[in-house]
Order: sequence, then structure tokens, then C-alpha cells
Amino acid sequence: MTINRRALLSGMTGAAMLAPFLAIERAMAQHAGHGDHSGHTSAKGSPSLEEQQAMKARHDKLMTELYGDNLFKNEEVAMLLYPGFTALDLVGPHYFFACMFGAKVHLVTTEPDLKPVASDLGLAIAPTVTLEETPADLDVLFMPGGTKGTLDVMNSERIMDWVKDRASRAKNITSVCTGSMILAKAGLLDGKKATSHWATFPILADYGAIPTDERVVQDGNILTGAGVSAGLDFAIALVEQLRGRKYAETLVLQAEYDPEPPIKAGSLADASEDVGEMMELMFSPVAQEFRALAAS
Amino acid sequence: MTINRRALLSGMTGAAMLAPFLAIERAMAQHAGHGDHSGHTSAKGSPSLEEQQAMKARHDKLMTELYGDNLFKNEEVAMLLYPGFTALDLVGPHYFFACMFGAKVHLVTTEPDLKPVASDLGLAIAPTVTLEETPADLDVLFMPGGTKGTLDVMNSERIMDWVKDRASRAKNITSVCTGSMILAKAGLLDGKKATSHWATFPILADYGAIPTDERVVQDGNILTGAGVSAGLDFAIALVEQLRGRKYAETLVLQAEYDPEPPIKAGSLADASEDVGEMMELMFSPVAQEFRALAAS
Repeated sequence: MTINRRALLSGMTGAAMLAPFLAIERAMAQHAGHGDHSGHTSAKGSPSLEEQQAMKARHDKLMTELYGDNLFKNEEVAMLLYPGFTALDLVGPHYFFACMFGAKVHLVTTEPDLKPVASDLGLAIAPTVTLEETPADLDVLFMPGGTKGTLDVMNSERIMDWVKDRASRAKNITSVCTGSMILAKAGLLDGKKATSHWATFPILADYGAIPTDERVVQDGNILTGAGVSAGLDFAIALVEQLRGRKYAETLVLQAEYDPEPPIKAGSLADASEDVGEMMELMFSPVAQEFRALAAS
Repeated sequence: MTINRRALLSGMTGAAMLAPFLAIERAMAQHAGHGDHSGHTSAKGSPSLEEQQAMKARHDKLMTELYGDNLFKNEEVAMLLYPGFTALDLVGPHYFFACMFGAKVHLVTTEPDLKPVASDLGLAIAPTVTLEETPADLDVLFMPGGTKGTLDVMNSERIMDWVKDRASRAKNITSVCTGSMILAKAGLLDGKKATSHWATFPILADYGAIPTDERVVQDGNILTGAGVSAGLDFAIALVEQLRGRKYAETLVLQAEYDPEPPIKAGSLADASEDVGEMMELMFSPVAQEFRALAAS
């Protein structure tokens, strides 16, 4: 199999993995233009045209061997943007999803127009489609978390109807952080194992879900990740399911995901007692609001 | 010391850490409106007004004890947005920076207007200021990475002049991923220890820097992080310097940063040999372009 660059190009949502391909061809074109067919390494130590052709051939062969039919597919992925969402909940997974050749990653706004949607920390991301424009049949439906903004989504019949509709046909129903509260409110987690940010984790039970204390939790076609930064672990697990082990491994290497937290405090068990107590107190009013919505 | 909520509000760039405060006050106002001053836990198991007041007092006391003068400061942080930047390089650190009460986080576009800037994977982020509008004196100057887009920045005299100008007075000069190539091209890494994405790591030497194989590398006021996901580790290290250990620990807990990569392949040493070879071949043309710019 030869790599079909045209197919890659037409299907790409982005260009991170593509840029190097184009660079190969650009470099080869430049070499050709300079008439350098000597096969010798140039003065600057850059490979000759012949060396580059050999590298490209080897690269293409490895790609075929490593990924086979998983190299290029056409998943429809919808990630929800709503005012007050936590940007990192979404951008972590987006990196991995958008690096899947051929996948279409839709950034779906809950608002009537395509203006950038402000996250809880102010950073605003431009959506690509409205709720109505989102494909009806999705491979992945994804909910990021937040606090006040997430509660607003859960209180919106219009948005929750959309969530229920797309979830009814989605191949994978997914969330990171308090995004699982949205799935829970939609009745999608009834009797299902799931996780959430630690502040809302026990509240999953109020919605009939089974709080499961793992970083990434799978139950059938439902995949939920823990708080904020868990989106990276979550996305890698999902890419492995969609594209296989080697593809996921490639993206882990590309993202240089070899974490070394300078401080071990990522769970209530690991954080100092005073920091944990302060944060539990800080989140308790919002947690109460998430809890109250389970009864409504 | 009493927490000055007005000061917190006026200085906030975002609201992730603030939302819970507001929720406390909203809940208390609702309780007050309902005339519930009984001090008893309500039917739903939510705390009574008296309990909430006690929780708030305890919360405020802990905040004062934990953070002291570090609770609220006024750092000026500038993060560069350029066409083709890698969004996760920037959004990881943004989460931690924007959670520092009082810090002003500027998203600086290299473009002439404030239209959203498209990243390498298509996700576009709305800037808050142009190069010219960015404060002259910065506490933190931050460069995300990319591939083709990063090379374009390095080739732009206008943008590089801005980088050099702001760096000449910035208290902290920082980058994640190939963002260090921009700092290197600006001559800021001469004789300095630094890191980069693994694909460009050895090229730091071409610019006179000392490639240092750690996830986060400090040399004086220069702090560089490795590829993409290293932005989280990098940002936590910087928050600790700016706000102290307890503040950084709090954000680690809030972000639930207790990583569990499903696949251990985040470095060339850990990835399968075939995946590593494919990726080195894929990045080699771009790496050559970064190398060539060192000589120009």
C-alpha cells in the first residue's frame, strides 16, 4: 500500500501530523530545483535527495506496517463547547482525537451562533458547528466539565434534548471531569460505572450511576475520565479503541506524554490535609448544586 | 486577614476558582431568603445556613493560613498565539496561570486583529491583545510550540523583535515544546540549559544552548518544558515559584493531576522501536528546517 497523501489531506481536520509530510515533499522539491542529485550529504549536514527519498520510502513502509487500515478512518467526533466549560478538559482530548487521520472533530456550540465560547478561565475557543448542524450519527460524543456553566447545561431542556438525541445513536458516549454530570442528568449513566472530578465523584450515585474510583472508567460504550488533566489518559484509551495500540502509542510519543508531576497532590489522598480540606470546602457549594439537580 | 472578594473579583481573568466562592454566597443568600436560620441540616441533606457559615469561616481561615500574601498577586502573563501553534502546549499552562488569583493572562496574537488564531489541529483560540497592546513589562513571557507555524514566527523580523523586546524585561522567559526554538532564534538561550520537544531537542545546540534532558529545565530566569504534555509539569513548577508550594499543590489537586498514561511510550526510549523510527523519520524534514534556521 502506498500512502495516499491526497486522501490524508482531504480528510484532515488539522495538520500537526501532516506538516512533516509536506515538509518532506517541500524539501525534495527544493533539492530537485537545485539540481542536486548527487546523493551526497550537503554541506550543512542535511540529507541528500537520494537519502531523503530512502527515508520517505522507509517512513511509508513503516506506516503501512504499523497501522494498516487504522491509518485513515473517518470518525465523526462531537465535543461540546458551552459558556463556562473548562478548556483543558476539552483541549487535552482534542489533541489526540484531531491527530487521528481522517477523523472529523466538530466543536459544537450550545449558543445560536459561531462566536468563540468563553471557558471558565476566560480563554475562548471558536466552535465549528451549532447543535443543529452537528452530524446526527456520531462515533464519539464528548462532554467537558465545568462548574456553574455545567449546571446551566443540565438545566437547559434544549441542550439536554440534544445530548439525549445524539447519545441515542453515538457509538461512544464520553466525558471528562464534571462532564459526567451532564451524562448523568441525561439518564445515560443509570446503573453504569462512571467517574468524575473528585468533587462530584460521590454525586454520581445520586443519579443512579456507580461511582468507580479509576482514572478512566469504561462501561459498555460509555467512557468517563476523572478531573481536568485525566482527559489525556482518557483520550489515549479511546484512541486505542478506535485506531489500535500502535496508533495510540504513536500519539503518546508525539505528545511526549511521560508525565513527571513536580508535586504529588493530584488526589485527596495525596494532597496535604489542609489543602484537601480547603478545597473540599471550596467545592462544597457547587457540589450541593449538582446534588440538588439529581432530585429535580 | 479577611478574604477581599471584591479584590478577587476585579483582578480575576477567569472564574474557575471563584465559582465556588460565588456559590457559597448564592447558597447563603437563598437560605436567608427562605428564612431558614434553624441551623439544622435540610431535608435533602444539604447543610443549614449556620453550617454553611461555619464552613465558609473555616474555608477563609484555611486560605489565609495556607497562602498568606500569595493568595492574591498581580502577575502580567503573556502567552503567544500564532497560526499553527499547538493548542495543548498553551492550554495546559493557561489552566494553571489563569487560576492564580489576580494574575492577568494575556493571549497575544501575532496577527493584526483579534480574530481567533487557528492552531495546527484547527482548534482556534480567541486572543485578547495584539503584540503592540501587550504590557511592556511582563512577569511571564510564554511561547508554545508547533511545526510550520513556529518556523514562520522565527522567520518574522517583526515578531522576533517583539519577542526580544519583551524578553529583555520579562521576569520569566518560558516555553513548552518547540516554543524553545523561538527563544533560541531570539538569542535568549545562548549558553543556557534548555529543553524542547524530543524532535528538536538536539537542535538546541545548533543555537548555542545546552540541551538538557529533563522534563522541565531551569537556567536563571529561563524555564523550558519538553513536548506538548510537559506543559502541565512546566506550569506547576512555575506556579510554585510565583505563588509558593501550597498554591501549586492546590492547583494540582484541582486539576486532579495524578497521571496514569495507559501506554508508556512518551519518550523515544520507552516507545516501540518501529514507532520511534517512524516518528523520527516523520519529523526529520521539519527538524532539518529548524536546524537550517540556526545558521541563517
